[in-house]
Amino acid sequence: MATPSRRILIDHARLVTVAGGDGPLAGPRQGRVGLVVDGALAVEAGRILAAGPREDVLRQVTSAWGAAAEREQIDADGRVVMPGLVDAHSHPVWAGSRVAELELRIRGAGYVEIMEAGGGIASTVRATRDATDEALLADLLTRLDQLMDHGVTTLEAKSGYGLSTAEELRHLRVLAQAAARHPMRIVPTFLGAHAVPDEFRGRDEAYVDLVVEEMLPAVAAAFPGAFCDAFCDLGAFSLAQTERVLNAARALGLPLKVHADEFGHLGCAELAARLGAVSADHCIVTSPADMDAMARSGTVAVLLPGTTLGLGSLHFAPARELLLHGVPLALGTDLNPGTCPCPDLPLIMAMAARYLKLTPDEVLVAATRNAAYASGRGAVAGRLEAGFAADLLLLEAQDHRELCYAFGQTPRMQVMVGGIWTRQTRALAIEGAR
Amino acid sequence: MATPSRRILIDHARLVTVAGGDGPLAGPRQGRVGLVVDGALAVEAGRILAAGPREDVLRQVTSAWGAAAEREQIDADGRVVMPGLVDAHSHPVWAGSRVAELELRIRGAGYVEIMEAGGGIASTVRATRDATDEALLADLLTRLDQLMDHGVTTLEAKSGYGLSTAEELRHLRVLAQAAARHPMRIVPTFLGAHAVPDEFRGRDEAYVDLVVEEMLPAVAAAFPGAFCDAFCDLGAFSLAQTERVLNAARALGLPLKVHADEFGHLGCAELAARLGAVSADHCIVTSPADMDAMARSGTVAVLLPGTTLGLGSLHFAPARELLLHGVPLALGTDLNPGTCPCPDLPLIMAMAARYLKLTPDEVLVAATRNAAYASGRGAVAGRLEAGFAADLLLLEAQDHRELCYAFGQTPRMQVMVGGIWTRQTRALAIEGAR
Repeated sequence: MATPSRRILIDHARLVTVAGGDGPLAGPRQGRVGLVVDGALAVEAGRILAAGPREDVLRQVTSAWGAAAEREQIDADGRVVMPGLVDAHSHPVWAGSRVAELELRIRGAGYVEIMEAGGGIASTVRATRDATDEALLADLLTRLDQLMDHGVTTLEAKSGYGLSTAEELRHLRVLAQAAARHPMRIVPTFLGAHAVPDEFRGRDEAYVDLVVEEMLPAVAAAFPGAFCDAFCDLGAFSLAQTERVLNAARALGLPLKVHADEFGHLGCAELAARLGAVSADHCIVTSPADMDAMARSGTVAVLLPGTTLGLGSLHFAPARELLLHGVPLALGTDLNPGTCPCPDLPLIMAMAARYLKLTPDEVLVAATRNAAYASGRGAVAGRLEAGFAADLLLLEAQDHRELCYAFGQTPRMQVMVGGIWTRQTRALAIEGAR
Repeated sequence: MATPSRRILIDHARLVTVAGGDGPLAGPRQGRVGLVVDGALAVEAGRILAAGPREDVLRQVTSAWGAAAEREQIDADGRVVMPGLVDAHSHPVWAGSRVAELELRIRGAGYVEIMEAGGGIASTVRATRDATDEALLADLLTRLDQLMDHGVTTLEAKSGYGLSTAEELRHLRVLAQAAARHPMRIVPTFLGAHAVPDEFRGRDEAYVDLVVEEMLPAVAAAFPGAFCDAFCDLGAFSLAQTERVLNAARALGLPLKVHADEFGHLGCAELAARLGAVSADHCIVTSPADMDAMARSGTVAVLLPGTTLGLGSLHFAPARELLLHGVPLALGTDLNPGTCPCPDLPLIMAMAARYLKLTPDEVLVAATRNAAYASGRGAVAGRLEAGFAADLLLLEAQDHRELCYAFGQTPRMQVMVGGIWTRQTRALAIEGAR
């Protein structure tokens, strides 16, 4: 039985539920935020007991808890209460800085050019391999704090700067250690097929053999349920290589994701749909036929406009076209040291409104419920509905659209994960909320 | 005589001075950050006593203070010490939100279209006129806190949501009240010619008469030394109207700024140069001939890439062309409720690197020394040099370029204004630094 202190009632909230039905929201449903203007929400033992119109919730609470039961009670006074943000794509396990590479890029070097010159991912791989577990963990925990300061409560987090069996396993272990210490919900993804490491230069197929024959079985044994991802693009892995990796992962029971169509149209989004991948990410040069295939398979498109900014590019994903084709849209930071050193998901949301031409409601669904599905956590998090995890934000705002209006200034907020208020640097001074 | 506690020595700093010579830095000098790898900096009575190689500074300190003199001493341990950031363009005095307008814009309405439909600036004018002094001041102080959290120590701040003599004077008074209460250095600018208010709809010339004949004399009397600015563009004021306003201001002794070439090329950058304006701001569609004129007059181009993001536009200022023509470049947030609700100057700097193709060093000069000149404070702030104000940042970074590498995550820092450490939410835990 739950202790009384784990009962929480948030009353007089402007509630954004994103609730109802099953699966990610697509097409005309992409913007269904499920607003309850005068709402309440009850939490018990880390889960949502009830969320909706306040009379309904108060009635359920009285029935479940009794009128006099001890609980933490908070008057939101019309403020927004919404699901915690879900970041559906990040690479947070790294050491070193890529600031020097930024200068190269400004002077005109392209991403593929930098990568081929031994910069790019390879330089981060060297620094990350050299870092101790303790150093990696400390940096990772700092990044998790930064993400949570911006309202993220669930994070899809990839390995991929190890690129050897031992190092990839080590980075996934560091991720697991961070998950054990930090309130953030972490979804681990194995991205051994992120780049070909220096020691396999010119022997791509031998590296793919290593991923398929050695890394994947080891990952599946040590981290059952982890996602397998691959970077299919010009200068990265070919469509055939990607298909080998994903097929091997699928045979081991791992769910799939893929970096598709960021720079070149190699047919990877179609592959993702064909293999039943949970998500295809980036999708900047995806074709209409690929979009139809993704819509049919229910593959979520994870869009990463922060990376477009990070690269100083003007090429954004064709979000409205994806939406019209019925592909559910999610968002992620793509937090990584090379192309997007940015943990600010609300900034990404503000960019999605302005550059992907998504309405604030469509953006909100993309960064909560749909991102949870893209991370394999759609049945657990991403909405405020009875039975789901009590992961929520209490915003210093009367309108949820404020979250993608201002940018470079995340609204003050209280963050709850699993029914527990987290430490927040920009915490509100609300009676009852800690 | 200064009290001993006002003596501060920061030792073992990676010092970015941006020092030497006079005037803003242009052309090949735009990136002269004046790095001193093993530096020190001494502060006395709010000003910099010495800044440079540590042996030189320690010698001067011993000579000026004596070896045993009481002082606050900080070991920066190789961290970056650099001038406080200067935001050369902001509109921080407003009430209300424009979140609903964001949706209109996403659905395809243009800036001029929204303005002509009675939205845009006019809606903020209505809300701001309705706000009490106390409400305006409270919101303004919050924005100053946000700017300073991002490292801004000097702010050019415009009126322009009053648009009547009484309201414009009231907003400038609120700015002066904020300046008296907040450590931020505030440079006031009168922007009566921001938009034609509703009550003058269709009578533009009569409104310009009011600005010229009534507002400007009143502003010059109450706020001598304030800048006069005007919004010269399609849907705003014509070139002839702008020239009337700026000429009248010049006759009253006010220094000049102008919003030039944001949407339409009306010839306003050339006008700015001809009238000796201190800055021309936006400069997105400025012609090569205009650039030559600006370079000759020493008019600073204040670039505002955050507004391009805020508008979801792909049109950035031709920064490298301006630079090649010898125009000194500065940066500003353009903080305002319509097109750029963003107080994060480091984000603007990160965008300037990526989209204006300025090197991190050129960006740093643009956001310190050159922005100070663009704000009429080039002889006071914007560099670390003997005699200048002790406005500085002590960054949790070993490389000043980090400030425009990561984005959406301003590095942890300590901020000093006039020799006094300010309250900082993301303060460092450095021995001796408060």
